[in-house]
Order: sequence, then structure tokens, then C-alpha cells
Amino acid sequence: MAEEVKLFKTWSSPFGLRIVWALKLKGIQYESIDEDLTNKSPLLLQYNPVYKKIPVLLHNGQPIVESLIILEYIDETWKKNPLLPEDPHKRATARFLAKFGDDKVMSSIWAILTKEGKEQEEASVQAIENLKFLEEELKGKRFFGGEGIGFLDIALGWLANLVPVLEEILGYEVIDKAGFPFLSEWMLEFSSFPEIKENLPLHDKLVTKFRAYLAAAPDK
Amino acid sequence: MAEEVKLFKTWSSPFGLRIVWALKLKGIQYESIDEDLTNKSPLLLQYNPVYKKIPVLLHNGQPIVESLIILEYIDETWKKNPLLPEDPHKRATARFLAKFGDDKVMSSIWAILTKEGKEQEEASVQAIENLKFLEEELKGKRFFGGEGIGFLDIALGWLANLVPVLEEILGYEVIDKAGFPFLSEWMLEFSSFPEIKENLPLHDKLVTKFRAYLAAAPDK
Repeated sequence: MAEEVKLFKTWSSPFGLRIVWALKLKGIQYESIDEDLTNKSPLLLQYNPVYKKIPVLLHNGQPIVESLIILEYIDETWKKNPLLPEDPHKRATARFLAKFGDDKVMSSIWAILTKEGKEQEEASVQAIENLKFLEEELKGKRFFGGEGIGFLDIALGWLANLVPVLEEILGYEVIDKAGFPFLSEWMLEFSSFPEIKENLPLHDKLVTKFRAYLAAAPDK
Repeated sequence: MAEEVKLFKTWSSPFGLRIVWALKLKGIQYESIDEDLTNKSPLLLQYNPVYKKIPVLLHNGQPIVESLIILEYIDETWKKNPLLPEDPHKRATARFLAKFGDDKVMSSIWAILTKEGKEQEEASVQAIENLKFLEEELKGKRFFGGEGIGFLDIALGWLANLVPVLEEILGYEVIDKAGFPFLSEWMLEFSSFPEIKENLPLHDKLVTKFRAYLAAAPDK
């Protein structure tokens, strides 16, 4: 029986892109279903009744939700090109920093873009402090996963993808070469890795989307 | 070389208890370090510089933080009495519901205790809805992990431990036998399992602690 692999995503969501990248790196064929989040499909609501969010991976009829959990599922189901390292402590570090990326780094960087004045300054200080943890982890390595792209590279891939977009809108660099030599280099390396490069949303289209979002936001 | 296993925790934190239970179920000897959260030890701050929280597991000098990540580390390091199932989809479900327990169930139950009036009613409706997902998952099983206590039982153990405390303070049952026959039975089974029963904080001490907390809370 042929495997059924379907991915519910949007063209721009960094959480959906994680799954695209992981499936491409594993060489898994899948059907892509692009959702309109203003009018979610009945299938999305059926498969993710708790959070009602993309991404959802449907594998032979069984839904898996939450992007970091889907990444682990993919890594456990298709063993080729492992994403997580073997060593339990390295696995724990990758899981911790992926969660840290979502909980802390993403919100602090987002706040630079959406806040103003003193709040924006505080967000900037917080973002730099958070990014320093990632810079430290990357020191002396090509990727977080070592020589190849791993779980944490995919989980933090939104940095390589979205930070240049935010920087264009802000008019200055958040992850600059002087302050973050390893992260800066990683952003370039990650974005130019074939399976990633071929599956990145267009920069200009993202800039347009974010500018429109900010123009419509009530507090700007 | 003897293994060094140290656990930084408090006597009552449900996140610290997860690690106690997992180590006991695995039969791992460890040294327990009870933290005073009003005066955190320099070691705790050194080992968890990002979140500055317990629990921290120190294994042969290497710190691991975040309770669900520590549980995975323990399961991968000491293979005896596996906590997570083998099947990738069942693993994903256990991870998802553990996260759901922390993100949604815990906050909705906590809000019943700390809010008043309309907000309290809304929290109650939300908590019941969230608990229904867990009841559904448990249907026909003794434990979430099947015949034995697994990852999700440990992650949701705070329900068996803390809900009776909250119910005593509230004066009514949140997880009642009629509405939640499987969860009610599971709470009893879990709490009376030897490795759990021997490592539960005293009910009356918890009631006193929570009553004091609520009396001091600014919005009550």
C-alpha cells in the first residue's frame, strides 16, 4: 500500500515550513494542502480540534499536530537522515533550545517589530540576550546539528527566513555580523542549503505581508 | 565510576514531582536538593540561567532543564521500565497531551481557583471541556500508558495530586465520578501506585499552602 502523507500548512507560516523542510530532508513525498486561516477547512478543524491550527501532518489517516512534535514523529517514522542526535544530553539540549526559540526568542523579536518607544527598547535588549544563548550554542559549528541540518536548525529556521524580512522593515540589522558572527553565517548557510532554499517563501512577498499586517495592527 | 544524579526541586512543585516519580519508577538513586524559591541557590541559577526554575536534573555534571524534556532524557538514558510507548504515533499523542495538560488544562483549572464571578464560570466551562479530551484518551485503559504508568501519566500526575486539594478548597468536585468516570478512577489508581504513593506531598500541607497563597493573592 502506498503511504498517504498530507501536510496542512500555509505558504508563509514558519511552523508549517518546519515540516516542509523536514519532509524534504528525509526525501518523503507528500501532498500539500494550503489553508486559508480566515476560513479554515472542516478537515483542519477535525484533525486539530484543540488548537485548530496548522501544521497538521496526516500519515495514513492519523493526524499529528504541533510542529515540534511532528518533527519528532517524522524523525522516528523515517529513519533516513536523522534530525535529532543520538546522545540523550544533546537531544535534551536541542529540545530545550527549540522550545526556548518558540517561547522566548520569537516573542522578543516579534515585540521589536510590533512595540514602540520604551517597550521596543526593552524587547530589543531581551532579544539580544536571548540570541546570545543561541550564538554560544553554535560556536565552532556549521549547523546546530553539527555538519548537517538537524532538529534545532529546522526549529530555528524561522530566524534565517524571517529575520531578514523584519530587518528590512525595521531598517537595521538585529542579527549583525559583529555581534553574532556564528548566527549570521548560519543564516546564510541554512538558507542556501538546497532542500531549504527550494522551499522558502519569497522575501519580497513576506515583506509585503508583514507591512500590511503592521499597517492594520491596532497599536501601530 | 559511580553515577552522579542530583535533582533540584521543591517539596510541592508538580514539575519537580514528575522527575521524582520518573526516577523512582526507573529505580535510579539520586540526591535531592530542595530549593527555597524566594532565595534560589547559586547552583540553580548556574544550571538553569534561562528560566531560573526547578526542576533541574544534574547527571554526571551536566544539567538538564524543563520537566517534560527531563522525562524524555531519563527515558532515553535509563531504558528499564520505558515511559514512552514505542509506536511513533502513540509517542506523538503522549507528547501532545502532556503539552496540552501544561498549556491548557493546568491554566483553566488554576483559573477556577483564582478567579471569581463570570471569569470563574468561564474557566470552569473551559476546564471541563479540556478534561473531556483527557477522559476520551483514557477510555478503556487503566493508565494513559496502558497497563503501567507512562510518560503521560507522570506528566498529568499533578491532576491526581492537586485536584483533590483544589476541590477541598472550592468545596465541590471538579473531576466528578459521573462526568469523568475514567479520570476519577485513574486519579485513585495513580495515587495509590507504590512509587507514586510514597512520593506525594501531604494533602493537608498542600491545602494549607494553597489557602495561604490565595489569602495573600492581590485579586482575592
